[in-house]
Amino acid sequence: MTTIQEALDIIQRGAEEILPLDELTLKLKENRPLRIKVGLDPTAPDIHLGHTVLINKLKAFQDLGHHVLLLIGDFTAMIGDPSGKNATRPPLSKEQVLENAKTYTNQVFKILDPSKTEICYNSSWIEKLGAKGLIELASTYTVARMLERDDFGKRFQTNQPIAIHEFLYPLVQGYDSVALKADIELGGTDQKFNLLMGRELQKHFNQSPQVILTVPLLEGLDGIKKMSKSLNNYIGIDESPNEMFGKMMSISDLLMWRYYDLLSFRSESEIKKLKKQVSEGMNPRDAKVMLAKEIIERFHDKACAEEAEQHFINQFKKGEIPEDIEEITLPADQAEFPLPNLIKECGLTSGTSEAIRMINQGAVKVDGEKVTDKSLKLKAGSTYVLQVGKRKFAKLILG
Amino acid sequence: MTTIQEALDIIQRGAEEILPLDELTLKLKENRPLRIKVGLDPTAPDIHLGHTVLINKLKAFQDLGHHVLLLIGDFTAMIGDPSGKNATRPPLSKEQVLENAKTYTNQVFKILDPSKTEICYNSSWIEKLGAKGLIELASTYTVARMLERDDFGKRFQTNQPIAIHEFLYPLVQGYDSVALKADIELGGTDQKFNLLMGRELQKHFNQSPQVILTVPLLEGLDGIKKMSKSLNNYIGIDESPNEMFGKMMSISDLLMWRYYDLLSFRSESEIKKLKKQVSEGMNPRDAKVMLAKEIIERFHDKACAEEAEQHFINQFKKGEIPEDIEEITLPADQAEFPLPNLIKECGLTSGTSEAIRMINQGAVKVDGEKVTDKSLKLKAGSTYVLQVGKRKFAKLILG
Repeated sequence: MTTIQEALDIIQRGAEEILPLDELTLKLKENRPLRIKVGLDPTAPDIHLGHTVLINKLKAFQDLGHHVLLLIGDFTAMIGDPSGKNATRPPLSKEQVLENAKTYTNQVFKILDPSKTEICYNSSWIEKLGAKGLIELASTYTVARMLERDDFGKRFQTNQPIAIHEFLYPLVQGYDSVALKADIELGGTDQKFNLLMGRELQKHFNQSPQVILTVPLLEGLDGIKKMSKSLNNYIGIDESPNEMFGKMMSISDLLMWRYYDLLSFRSESEIKKLKKQVSEGMNPRDAKVMLAKEIIERFHDKACAEEAEQHFINQFKKGEIPEDIEEITLPADQAEFPLPNLIKECGLTSGTSEAIRMINQGAVKVDGEKVTDKSLKLKAGSTYVLQVGKRKFAKLILG
Repeated sequence: MTTIQEALDIIQRGAEEILPLDELTLKLKENRPLRIKVGLDPTAPDIHLGHTVLINKLKAFQDLGHHVLLLIGDFTAMIGDPSGKNATRPPLSKEQVLENAKTYTNQVFKILDPSKTEICYNSSWIEKLGAKGLIELASTYTVARMLERDDFGKRFQTNQPIAIHEFLYPLVQGYDSVALKADIELGGTDQKFNLLMGRELQKHFNQSPQVILTVPLLEGLDGIKKMSKSLNNYIGIDESPNEMFGKMMSISDLLMWRYYDLLSFRSESEIKKLKKQVSEGMNPRDAKVMLAKEIIERFHDKACAEEAEQHFINQFKKGEIPEDIEEITLPADQAEFPLPNLIKECGLTSGTSEAIRMINQGAVKVDGEKVTDKSLKLKAGSTYVLQVGKRKFAKLILG
């Protein structure tokens, strides 16, 4: 049995804010499975590690015996952006929503326990609300308070248009908490306003208001910007073990500890111990390998993690390849690229004809293996170590 | 047959604004019965002359062969003010709405031709819209533009709360024009924003947008403030002929011409002629009598109008009562009042005991008839001429 304090410690780990904390304590003391709500975006079903910060927190709640409600906002997804201004939010059909939800849940069940997870679709209660119910919802909140939401406020101040239906979506999302009788709702820090709306509406409908818990937005591989697919600084949970391993090894030591805090399932004391070891001389690369393998094991299996490590070691055969070679990222706008061009792009030769000459001379290696075929093409979506002669190296991240 | 120009003259008479006028001309040229929409307020079914400015304009359209749509906003009436802040707008039951609508239409059919009038209830299409349709409606308009509406803008500037559902009501009202395929919508000048919303939404739904026509708000008997029941400066269309006549005779000459323009069915040329006659020496009181009788005839009948005139003449028996006696209005907070008190209140005696003495001496007349009963009470809701001795007169408007 976990004590209340232990449960609180687990829940608070890596959380940005819990509001109000004393209500969370009271709810935990009720000693019943709490209803943990999280809203999913059915328009973007590909999950990367950034998303898993939240999903891991859900997992922690499940391990404490609580009940997770995965809310699919199909009602609004089926409407899309009716103002037509947001081309990236076309309306989805019922089928598309179900398909995306399936893709989504297939991925999250790599982390969550399906037996403690309920999938809910908000169309089932919002459609029942009707025009009348929606007007009543809208009556519970004022225009001025809605403009307190950061993005609304900024757009209003700078005369960017806000369509009125945008004011209705946070209300719909808040009403979901009423319909689900949520005890706790989780979201990214950018969702704080919407999560608080759920509290307001539950009070309005005479329910005990939900506690809100926000998690930080995970930085991408660059360590600076939010992890996202469009910035290409992400690790998708469906990526191959080798890709995951390579990407994970490329992050800075500082970011590694951030990832330990937000992504690892190791206990806080284990992580503390590891930090101490590194400060006492342990190579941080070894800690990075441990994290990479933990993540790969989670989304693939133990054997895959071992193989990925071996593949990585082979790329940097002991003694043959220096550790601090230059890393070059090339955008993968094609499926594959001719090797001579890549050699030139990495600055290992002055042109492609020199690159071809070096290949013909047997002076070119890819991932430690000599290449003699000058028409060899490298596939996008992977990392390669290129070598020309004895001393010229480049680590090439190809898209 | 009326020419387009004649029709335009009739329509423009007394109208505050017609937007856009050229579209009205085009619609008239289509030579078909146009669909003329007007929204009614089912929460306040008592009609006074102020309301009839609009209703008369509808009548003018009917006389030109057009089709009038009386829109009962039962959908929103049944919701009331869900924020609960507006105690004067409690939700109405379906039955109450129907009852009020009946009261309303019974009154307007004293003016309108029932065969060219259609009564419509917006619940029939707004309920079908559902939450989805309402969100789509809300997407057509921005927060900034909604705040351009005078009352919203002022409240926002002065930090008075605006509940979000208040932004939905103009959209619902505008959508009514879509559902009704309105060609023209009429309303008071205070409705201009909402009428234009109908235009916007019709364009959005690929309809030819309605022309809007606003009518001025009629001044009450005081000639200054808007005619309204709460200001007690109104003539209700269900009032008795004598009350109507007395009230109409009490208005200023200036206000009489305003009433001629907005309330009379006489042609503009007739009114012009009348003005000329008055300017050439005709007693304006005679023009006022003509207007009073026209109004009474409209809501009662010709005989009633004649009787009311006779009653009024009896009050001011020829030669006995000066024409320019002081007029005193006393609020009717009781059903009836003792005569001595009224005599004192009008300043005809210095106190009630002097008033009683004068009654006992046979020196008091009410409406030209000697009064000998010192305990006589006068009923509220009427006008009396009080006389004490030979020279002291007062015209008493009792509530």
